[in-house]
Amino acid sequence: MDLKIPSTGQKRLVIIGGGFGGIELTKRLKNQDIQVVMLDKHNYHCFQPLLYQVATGGLEPGSIAYPLRKFMQDIPNGIFRLAEVRNIDAVNQKIHTDIGDLNYDYLVIATGSTTNFFKFSKEVSGKMMQMKDIPQALNLRSFILENFEEALLTYDESKKEELINISIVGGGPTGVELAGALGEMRKNILPKDYPEIDFTKMQIHLFESGDRLLGAMHPENSAKVLKYVKDFGVEVWLNTMVTDFDGDVLTTADGKKVKCETLIWTAGVKGNPVEGFAPETIAGGNRISVDEYCKIKGYENIYAIGDVASMVQEKYPKGHPMVAPVAIQQGELVADNILAQLKGKAPKPFVYFDKGSMATVGRNKAVMEAKGIKMGGFIAWLAWLFVHVMSLVGFRNKITVTLGWLYNYFTYDRTLRLIIRPFKHKEE
Amino acid sequence: MDLKIPSTGQKRLVIIGGGFGGIELTKRLKNQDIQVVMLDKHNYHCFQPLLYQVATGGLEPGSIAYPLRKFMQDIPNGIFRLAEVRNIDAVNQKIHTDIGDLNYDYLVIATGSTTNFFKFSKEVSGKMMQMKDIPQALNLRSFILENFEEALLTYDESKKEELINISIVGGGPTGVELAGALGEMRKNILPKDYPEIDFTKMQIHLFESGDRLLGAMHPENSAKVLKYVKDFGVEVWLNTMVTDFDGDVLTTADGKKVKCETLIWTAGVKGNPVEGFAPETIAGGNRISVDEYCKIKGYENIYAIGDVASMVQEKYPKGHPMVAPVAIQQGELVADNILAQLKGKAPKPFVYFDKGSMATVGRNKAVMEAKGIKMGGFIAWLAWLFVHVMSLVGFRNKITVTLGWLYNYFTYDRTLRLIIRPFKHKEE
Repeated sequence: MDLKIPSTGQKRLVIIGGGFGGIELTKRLKNQDIQVVMLDKHNYHCFQPLLYQVATGGLEPGSIAYPLRKFMQDIPNGIFRLAEVRNIDAVNQKIHTDIGDLNYDYLVIATGSTTNFFKFSKEVSGKMMQMKDIPQALNLRSFILENFEEALLTYDESKKEELINISIVGGGPTGVELAGALGEMRKNILPKDYPEIDFTKMQIHLFESGDRLLGAMHPENSAKVLKYVKDFGVEVWLNTMVTDFDGDVLTTADGKKVKCETLIWTAGVKGNPVEGFAPETIAGGNRISVDEYCKIKGYENIYAIGDVASMVQEKYPKGHPMVAPVAIQQGELVADNILAQLKGKAPKPFVYFDKGSMATVGRNKAVMEAKGIKMGGFIAWLAWLFVHVMSLVGFRNKITVTLGWLYNYFTYDRTLRLIIRPFKHKEE
Repeated sequence: MDLKIPSTGQKRLVIIGGGFGGIELTKRLKNQDIQVVMLDKHNYHCFQPLLYQVATGGLEPGSIAYPLRKFMQDIPNGIFRLAEVRNIDAVNQKIHTDIGDLNYDYLVIATGSTTNFFKFSKEVSGKMMQMKDIPQALNLRSFILENFEEALLTYDESKKEELINISIVGGGPTGVELAGALGEMRKNILPKDYPEIDFTKMQIHLFESGDRLLGAMHPENSAKVLKYVKDFGVEVWLNTMVTDFDGDVLTTADGKKVKCETLIWTAGVKGNPVEGFAPETIAGGNRISVDEYCKIKGYENIYAIGDVASMVQEKYPKGHPMVAPVAIQQGELVADNILAQLKGKAPKPFVYFDKGSMATVGRNKAVMEAKGIKMGGFIAWLAWLFVHVMSLVGFRNKITVTLGWLYNYFTYDRTLRLIIRPFKHKEE
């Protein structure tokens, strides 16, 4: 059945995904002579870089989510549909979704990425926690808190160890920031919440298969972050692959065994393409091969942007990093290129402007680097706060995140330790 | 198996329920020579009077929930366990829970109330939405938003009507406040979020079996509220019983049929007692009969307070109203009476100090009455805001609710229109 969409006589662009790329692209096409239809399986935009704060009770989901319909209120030529895309029929220029079919004149795939569990079986990866969207972050929050509750009940010291230990796999920004937040909780909050548990016995492990944390940053910053994380009592294992997990104990390639029920996998992401493209279109990391205009190779009117797109350029032989600034800049570019295509003009190639990168580890500590400048400590931390608040969509979210952080900073607290939807012992 | 609880050599009081009554009682026993064990099936206290704002996207759940463990940090003689109580074995002074058994010296039942669907079968009531806790309020939020999304997709005008109409059954404070909030959303938000839907066709019905809204308040206030609600375009049906609902259409006793997929039942609550008491202990409304000291009739060391307790006094032949102030005042009283009992002193009887009551209907409008004074309009509305903010537990919640309301007031917006856990089309 065809999806009900008002016809405006304009050409129709369909954007699949309301992430950083999708919303930037839409903004740029505001009031242009083209109908913009955005599809997303959620009705909100999620600010993924702060998901770890939702998982650790520092922020409410509503502070990092922004309703896509509210965003669309400002786009008179925009339409939103809550839909999960099944596949693309490029021959007939049609998209099949769970709510019906839809024709397009132009199509942009902006579906982002999902967790990459690599060779782990579903059985093993199903026991690991992940943190790519809000429901997953809330599940993680519930899971950790439920484990502490359970730890209070057992007389078995080995089981208690399993329940309170937490392992994080992956020493990128997500792993590092999460380790810092958990280290902070262990120090300032958990001993007060659970006075019956001896938190000096709680282990937080951070596993990284490479030889340093934050492999994408300068080695000096890696060293700084390693120190920050260790200052929080996190046990860091470099050059260490996690090879198995049975829900109670993880095993590393060198035979080490660590007891933990909570294993958070942040060690990889992969593109999340939609079905319907020729197999040769899919490049490494399950991303869609695009040319320098973000056009999918072999298609005239289909683009891909952000995490799901892989554009090989001289400085980026494996494609660009899977971060928000790439998605935003490609969103801008593709808006311009589609308008150019509509008018029969030449498209512009993508030039990535790298604004630098940053990561924080608990209060007052962060690292950042941009244009050859490297910085750590308090100033970098303030910069981290500022950049993240300003990147949030919506005035209300900027304010609630700022105030939430001020509160957490001065009280050394994170008050959102709520098990609203039990994960471990499902209630409903 | 016995629940692991540290033994302090003190007498043990177990409180079942961390609502208004339970936390007041606990506060009052702070630093007294008695071990206080609180059990609750959630790890947070929920401020129920504002649940309707969570359901309508005005407030985040975290703003009206307060972690019970954080509350317990201030109670050195207090212990919390996340537990669902199965039943009481009063003969052996033992409580059976889902996490183990527990002995008590004193016991307080503070389990509050649940929705009363009266004679409706489970099949019928299962199609109705309720709003007694946070997961239910979030389900309602998702359900309403999912229905609007679905309404966009259908060509069938009758089906569309079903999807966008909302019926509320029960003209008490919850029903009235919800009707006001929905009326406000229909006016200020929904037409912008869903420009393709004609919201002049959306009906909001409020059914009340009695002859006026807010039956517990003065008739003048009932009349005022009726006007307020009607000003928002809510269709009010007094003297009208809803007798059936099939998920699409509701039927009233006088044969009226109204199309709506969303029916929110606020027309009754009943006590939520735990099992294990003699049948004659259960009074009308499924509440536990208590004497003037809040002691359960026939038991020497078991009390009940708040919604779940029914104390017949001259002015209250059917027990006290099921509202927070009664629970709070009974919590205080029982704390004193248990201490008196410990010391072999005489208990004090309960005297309810009625502080009055209030209800709000959208912006700037409310009614209140106390000690013979009646008021409506803007001043009553400010008083409503003030009383509700001050009654919230925790500084952070007071601040976030105040700021959330300021934002909503000045922007005419409610930004939390997020379907985080789909209710209708379950995701996971």
